[in-house]
Amino acid sequence: MTNPVLVEVTRGNRVESRHRGIAVVVDGDGKVMQSLGDVDAAVFPRSACKAMQALPLVESGAANAFGFGASELAIACASHSGEDAHVELAASMLARAGQNESVLECGAHWSSESEVLIHQARSLDKPSALHNNCSGKHSGFVCACCHLGYDPKGYTTYDHPLQRDIRGVMESLTGAALGEDNCGTDGCSIPTYAIPLVALARGFAKMGTGNGLEPLRAGAARQLIEACMAEPFYVAGTDRFCTRLMTLSPGKIFAKTGAEGVFCAILPEKGISIALKCEDGTTRAAEAMIAGLLSAHFEAGTPEREALTAMAHHRMHNWNGIHVGDVRVTDALFA
Amino acid sequence: MTNPVLVEVTRGNRVESRHRGIAVVVDGDGKVMQSLGDVDAAVFPRSACKAMQALPLVESGAANAFGFGASELAIACASHSGEDAHVELAASMLARAGQNESVLECGAHWSSESEVLIHQARSLDKPSALHNNCSGKHSGFVCACCHLGYDPKGYTTYDHPLQRDIRGVMESLTGAALGEDNCGTDGCSIPTYAIPLVALARGFAKMGTGNGLEPLRAGAARQLIEACMAEPFYVAGTDRFCTRLMTLSPGKIFAKTGAEGVFCAILPEKGISIALKCEDGTTRAAEAMIAGLLSAHFEAGTPEREALTAMAHHRMHNWNGIHVGDVRVTDALFA
Repeated sequence: MTNPVLVEVTRGNRVESRHRGIAVVVDGDGKVMQSLGDVDAAVFPRSACKAMQALPLVESGAANAFGFGASELAIACASHSGEDAHVELAASMLARAGQNESVLECGAHWSSESEVLIHQARSLDKPSALHNNCSGKHSGFVCACCHLGYDPKGYTTYDHPLQRDIRGVMESLTGAALGEDNCGTDGCSIPTYAIPLVALARGFAKMGTGNGLEPLRAGAARQLIEACMAEPFYVAGTDRFCTRLMTLSPGKIFAKTGAEGVFCAILPEKGISIALKCEDGTTRAAEAMIAGLLSAHFEAGTPEREALTAMAHHRMHNWNGIHVGDVRVTDALFA
Repeated sequence: MTNPVLVEVTRGNRVESRHRGIAVVVDGDGKVMQSLGDVDAAVFPRSACKAMQALPLVESGAANAFGFGASELAIACASHSGEDAHVELAASMLARAGQNESVLECGAHWSSESEVLIHQARSLDKPSALHNNCSGKHSGFVCACCHLGYDPKGYTTYDHPLQRDIRGVMESLTGAALGEDNCGTDGCSIPTYAIPLVALARGFAKMGTGNGLEPLRAGAARQLIEACMAEPFYVAGTDRFCTRLMTLSPGKIFAKTGAEGVFCAILPEKGISIALKCEDGTTRAAEAMIAGLLSAHFEAGTPEREALTAMAHHRMHNWNGIHVGDVRVTDALFA
């Protein structure tokens, strides 16, 4: 099956590059409303499923025990830019559990956002694990371990009890079997599992609606999704796409990206969930795709529709500010 | 026509992302030896054709008049990283023509290489036009204008005499008609023209062999290609792919990338030229493709074949140094 071209990048009056992808939209019962390309293909959700991975933190009672509010829950679901506020919040979470950054197993890296990197270069000798874009998620993992009585050491490994718990949560939500066969290692060293795209969307539909979930899990899912929508800066950062999506209409959109062109989103009021992957793994295309798919669920003329449409078809400017071309979704996205 | 998948990116035991592309290999007479995908499609060569754009600098006698050696000619064909040595060389070229960076029309930007950006952030308030990856090419343009008696002002615009000269050179080399219809604006603000991929490869074949060129042009082309191969650091920079390709077997490979997944290469001793474009514009894929295509033209067991094969199929490691997957060319690349 050849997946459709969902995004084009133009220059002058020509199409310069093309991005193919798969995307699926489901309703609150998990029924497919729209399907593009081979949506039964298994994809690694990567960071797009961090809200699922954060469920044990809330369900275990750890988040309550440590007094975590919306900011802490949001950064537990985050791929943040490593801005000072992100680093400080992750450190404070570890401190509440009597831990510090030495327990983190995510590795260290400079920010991938150039503005933040310039600031880091001027203020740091080198980055620590707290600057890793996943440090909030990992701090949440460590806090969950401490509360559950698990030794945090090795918390990133396949056989650690926390990763077993996460695997169980994700199997239950998506209905997909997760094991060594479909397991890869993520950038931050935890297991990531290839899951059929449509199953991933159905998992988010359960998180968004609570349909089919036990009350404890439904409540934990609602708390995490609402925290991300309330504190979108902590889910990504200044000018980041996830933050912009969740800021444009507070409380109406949950959205989270993952490496290699994955995006998942929930429209909680409408009971709709979306999962997509750009075939070639490109972020600019996944961003345009999710904005385009979300736009179709807001009425013409609304500020949400206009903002999302502009994010799905935006101008590119060169170093002199000259308009050189556009990134735009194709008609196939709305088929 | 659906272009073939030429590169796969794996994670665990799964393919995570796929890159399609078009590629063509021609001999010294421009005869097609290998063709993958729709190679008659017009693509913007972007920076991959900088050696063509530098021909007026040499043919006009400007390069000789200003005493330019291999380093200056190499950086005139470069997309450099903005390292100190690049910035200093571009500045020295302008000084020889009695000019300075204020004449440059390429715009300013921070380095896109994170190691260089960290150094720049610590040593600069902000970057200048000399740090632009195209500053060597633009310095060459200004020097050509000064020698030819053209007012450099506006040297980036479609109707400036220098851009007319470049358009004429590129039409003659590629046989393609270049005009406003297939013109776009490049990142550094000069015109870029969409050219059928096979015509681009044939243009490089002429540059590599001199076949069908007048002696002045043949000599200028040889001088530029040899300069790039002799000074590959100035064509890109530390650890950059073009620099690595031209370093692994000095004098045997000329290679130059362009934005949006373009790569062009010449094997001067073999009279072979290659042009390719990754459909989705991704650099990692274009790099693997050119390494794979080049590898096929070196005998099994040679150091060149081994080095190129390793560049066409390399391991990806995460922040902790764990091997998480591979970037690898597919069998379709060798069809």
